[in-house]
Amino acid sequence: MTISMYEASVPVFSARLKALANVLDIAEQNAADRKIDPQVYLTARLAPDMFALTRQVQIATDHAKGAPSRLARREVPKYEDNEASFADLQARLAKTLDLLATFSAAEFDGSDDRMVELRLAGREVSMPGMQYLLHAAMPNFYFHLTTAYDILRHNGVPLGKSIFLGLR
Amino acid sequence: MTISMYEASVPVFSARLKALANVLDIAEQNAADRKIDPQVYLTARLAPDMFALTRQVQIATDHAKGAPSRLARREVPKYEDNEASFADLQARLAKTLDLLATFSAAEFDGSDDRMVELRLAGREVSMPGMQYLLHAAMPNFYFHLTTAYDILRHNGVPLGKSIFLGLR
Repeated sequence: MTISMYEASVPVFSARLKALANVLDIAEQNAADRKIDPQVYLTARLAPDMFALTRQVQIATDHAKGAPSRLARREVPKYEDNEASFADLQARLAKTLDLLATFSAAEFDGSDDRMVELRLAGREVSMPGMQYLLHAAMPNFYFHLTTAYDILRHNGVPLGKSIFLGLR
Repeated sequence: MTISMYEASVPVFSARLKALANVLDIAEQNAADRKIDPQVYLTARLAPDMFALTRQVQIATDHAKGAPSRLARREVPKYEDNEASFADLQARLAKTLDLLATFSAAEFDGSDDRMVELRLAGREVSMPGMQYLLHAAMPNFYFHLTTAYDILRHNGVPLGKSIFLGLR
């Protein structure tokens, strides 16, 4: 009758990141097909004061590594944020997927009402794990995941909803 | 130690739709300030073969009314999909928020492994409620919610992540 904190986080992040890896593969191939420098896509943004594609992917993975780590009371792994190519972004996704595979459901026991401390929108905040997952980590994660996709769609990369969802 | 299917759905949809109402309010005001016909924003899209703003909002609300209704074994309310103004979209959001307020947690008992039938990406599919919520309804909902925001950001509407998250 309920969802475990593990089920609501780890498999969700994993499935979405696998789909994102496919999205980025299609984008890289499309750049090659169109003879477009991959940097054009990697540095593309939807508005001058929004993050470019590379940063969107970095932040999406930050939430995917940060949320389960915080909920399971592990230290959040630090990444260098120095990705400069599609291959680098794929390596970051693979590293995050490898991390997600190391979590066990038992590590999330009690995480729904355990307090989590973090910086959110520039402020130090503290909230119960369930609120953190459902109302901070997930909305943020999906925001950057979708915006990465939207940047590529806006640049003419042939994608579709079923690819975003990981259905193909 | 776990999340109820109610907590993982109804309050999440409600909080995100309230933030979306604020996003649309800011967009409408911005159009007035810039003397831009509101239809410019309502019909804006990020790619020729992506949906325009109005349709993005419609689909986001479709998931917000559809997922809880299906999980609670209620009939999914039908909307006419004839919104033509910011006021119409606000009315649709308000109607959906009113619907969400009628759900009780008890209606979601057993919904995690009860099968849900629906059309997804053009196919009739059936899946357990938990999989439906976490891997179909939520990714779809966040996709359209974020894309609505991205369309407006791309058009210069002054928004920020904290507005998307409903923090202000």
